[in-house]
Amino acid sequence: MASEKPLLAVTCTAPVNIAVIKYWGKRDEDLVLPINSSLSVTLHQDQLKTTTTAAVSKDFTEDRIWLNGREEDVEQPRLQACLREIRRLARKRRSTGDEDPLPLSLTYKVHIASVNNFPTAAGLASSAAGYACLAYTLAQVYGVDSDLSEVARRGSGSACRSLYGGFVEWQMGERADGKDSIARQVAPESHWPELRVLILVVSAEKKLMGSTAGMQTSVETSPLLRFRAESVVPARMAEMTRCIQERDFQGFGQLTMKDSNQFHATCLDTFPPISYLSDTSRRIVHLVHRFNTHHGQTKVAYTFDAGPNAVVFTLEDTVPEFVAAVQHCFPPESNGDKFLKGLPVRPTPLSDEFKAALNVDPIPGSIKYIIATQVGPGPQILDDPHAHLLGPDGLPKPAA
Amino acid sequence: MASEKPLLAVTCTAPVNIAVIKYWGKRDEDLVLPINSSLSVTLHQDQLKTTTTAAVSKDFTEDRIWLNGREEDVEQPRLQACLREIRRLARKRRSTGDEDPLPLSLTYKVHIASVNNFPTAAGLASSAAGYACLAYTLAQVYGVDSDLSEVARRGSGSACRSLYGGFVEWQMGERADGKDSIARQVAPESHWPELRVLILVVSAEKKLMGSTAGMQTSVETSPLLRFRAESVVPARMAEMTRCIQERDFQGFGQLTMKDSNQFHATCLDTFPPISYLSDTSRRIVHLVHRFNTHHGQTKVAYTFDAGPNAVVFTLEDTVPEFVAAVQHCFPPESNGDKFLKGLPVRPTPLSDEFKAALNVDPIPGSIKYIIATQVGPGPQILDDPHAHLLGPDGLPKPAA
Repeated sequence: MASEKPLLAVTCTAPVNIAVIKYWGKRDEDLVLPINSSLSVTLHQDQLKTTTTAAVSKDFTEDRIWLNGREEDVEQPRLQACLREIRRLARKRRSTGDEDPLPLSLTYKVHIASVNNFPTAAGLASSAAGYACLAYTLAQVYGVDSDLSEVARRGSGSACRSLYGGFVEWQMGERADGKDSIARQVAPESHWPELRVLILVVSAEKKLMGSTAGMQTSVETSPLLRFRAESVVPARMAEMTRCIQERDFQGFGQLTMKDSNQFHATCLDTFPPISYLSDTSRRIVHLVHRFNTHHGQTKVAYTFDAGPNAVVFTLEDTVPEFVAAVQHCFPPESNGDKFLKGLPVRPTPLSDEFKAALNVDPIPGSIKYIIATQVGPGPQILDDPHAHLLGPDGLPKPAA
Repeated sequence: MASEKPLLAVTCTAPVNIAVIKYWGKRDEDLVLPINSSLSVTLHQDQLKTTTTAAVSKDFTEDRIWLNGREEDVEQPRLQACLREIRRLARKRRSTGDEDPLPLSLTYKVHIASVNNFPTAAGLASSAAGYACLAYTLAQVYGVDSDLSEVARRGSGSACRSLYGGFVEWQMGERADGKDSIARQVAPESHWPELRVLILVVSAEKKLMGSTAGMQTSVETSPLLRFRAESVVPARMAEMTRCIQERDFQGFGQLTMKDSNQFHATCLDTFPPISYLSDTSRRIVHLVHRFNTHHGQTKVAYTFDAGPNAVVFTLEDTVPEFVAAVQHCFPPESNGDKFLKGLPVRPTPLSDEFKAALNVDPIPGSIKYIIATQVGPGPQILDDPHAHLLGPDGLPKPAA
């Protein structure tokens, strides 16, 4: 039996995921149970990830949390729900008589530090990666190896989809207690190696309504949302799964765009209406359709979450031409910031005929930058103790 | 029996109408039969009207038409459908043995001239007023006094609603031949004298898709549109009729906004998606909701057709304050153009507290001007021969 260390720390990373069949609306606010199933693509952590260190010690006097180096209120309800749930699972594991895997007391307080490797200002859904990372890291600390969907879900619904790599569905489940509302991998990250993801970060205005409040209002007021959840999404889940399994990009791309549009349609049908798309978002939509029309097939596909940024799916060999088209329609402002980030991209020159076919008035500066990435794996444990965001004293390291 | 004149000319005017329960989608493209009923408010012709002169003469060698002084192709299918239909009704009337009311031959060719008293660039639905005026004027020429819904509808679906003043429903009908798809007055123009209409003309970009092509694509691709037509609109028609009958502005305004939003939601659910609202449109939506929230009740309501212009309904005593709020949020550009047109409006100064509550960054110039108007009567016959847009030679007068 190992001797009791003064401090047990674990550091893990978790990915961002982008839904291609959208989650919007809860049937149970408290348990975070959705009104429909959803399906997402896990993005690679080389470009976008959350890193979280959790540490327990008998010397800690209270639970504490630091996000991006700044201490936050540990009492906020969703965080408390995650902590309660992981400790419940840990107790359950001990009480079932399995050998106690870790020499720590469940009564010890926990310190948590979490950072993103991408700016929060980018408007990317950081809460999914954040709560998935929290659930995964706490599971290591407390020796929990059961399904973590509920822990992550209680923090942020879509976080359960960031618990796996590749292509992931969140089955809505039917039970009132939510035990069957879980995430499941549809295909691993190696399944479709040619698939690429371009995040077009739009120069943002402030967001008018957060997604939690937004979806609640939608459930209460949109007649179209209920119809979508009950009568449209089930068939789309099956169709999207088929497209992924068969690597059918045309089908995958078209359904991805249709489902994004329908999600935003239900936002508009909400009262008062919710608009997450900006004029720049709409210009990107237009560009994508023109690009596909020019090629006579669906070569690129957009999807938008609760904000104006576009996430564009395409195949590896289309990336250089599409990025060139984006640069043509949204010329970067020469502010010294790098326009192309992530995977290396070498845009190809566009023909004048193609430029004419795109038929858009270039609007400089309305896209801040592009992050090129691909499908990636699920959460990872970092073995290197230097990776810890918390020092031996249980406080954030100066660098973090 | 009157002697045959060399030229018989009739001049009429017809109003613009604005739908508060929207028409979007045909179940029969040829007969222009809608997938759902709709309901509109007829606007006053003092501010917005179409004037049309139709003349027949045995000397005319072909049908001809001039719109806003410019000759157009008389062969275009919708115009031909109107001409065919009115001549069919005229023949039917004669063959039923009624006394021949007008001494003219149905084989004579017709000359038509039509002008709007508002700029086409305003993006207001001029085709509804135009085809209603055409149907009404031709009916006078040919002595047809039966229901003109079908004649107007064949030109432009919503034109049948411009055949009446006040509040008008277009019953979708059930018959395959469309004989029961007719317009009917719900309440006359005198019914709700306090009701006011403000048209906020937005500095327009070019429209990307016309409404005829748009609604056809929506019918073919939007799962939400069918649900709306079958399961949402019938109850809304009944509710809107009640609100109008009871002059319940809160109910009227809220349902007007919800139905406009749902129409635009089905446009967004169309594939490829259709966006008629611009960022300025969305800012107007936001302003209206802030204004109502500040007052704790629905005092103003927006609706948008297939373009970015807002039509705002309110009651007479709210006009000065709301116009002041619009001027605050969208300061007019001092380009010499008059910002307030139509009925006289004297904006009231806003308190600083109210300005703060509106919480918008003023964007100069994004609204070009406001037309203040009210509910108005249906088509009118102009008795003054000086009103004719065609001269004794059957050609447009130089002034027209």
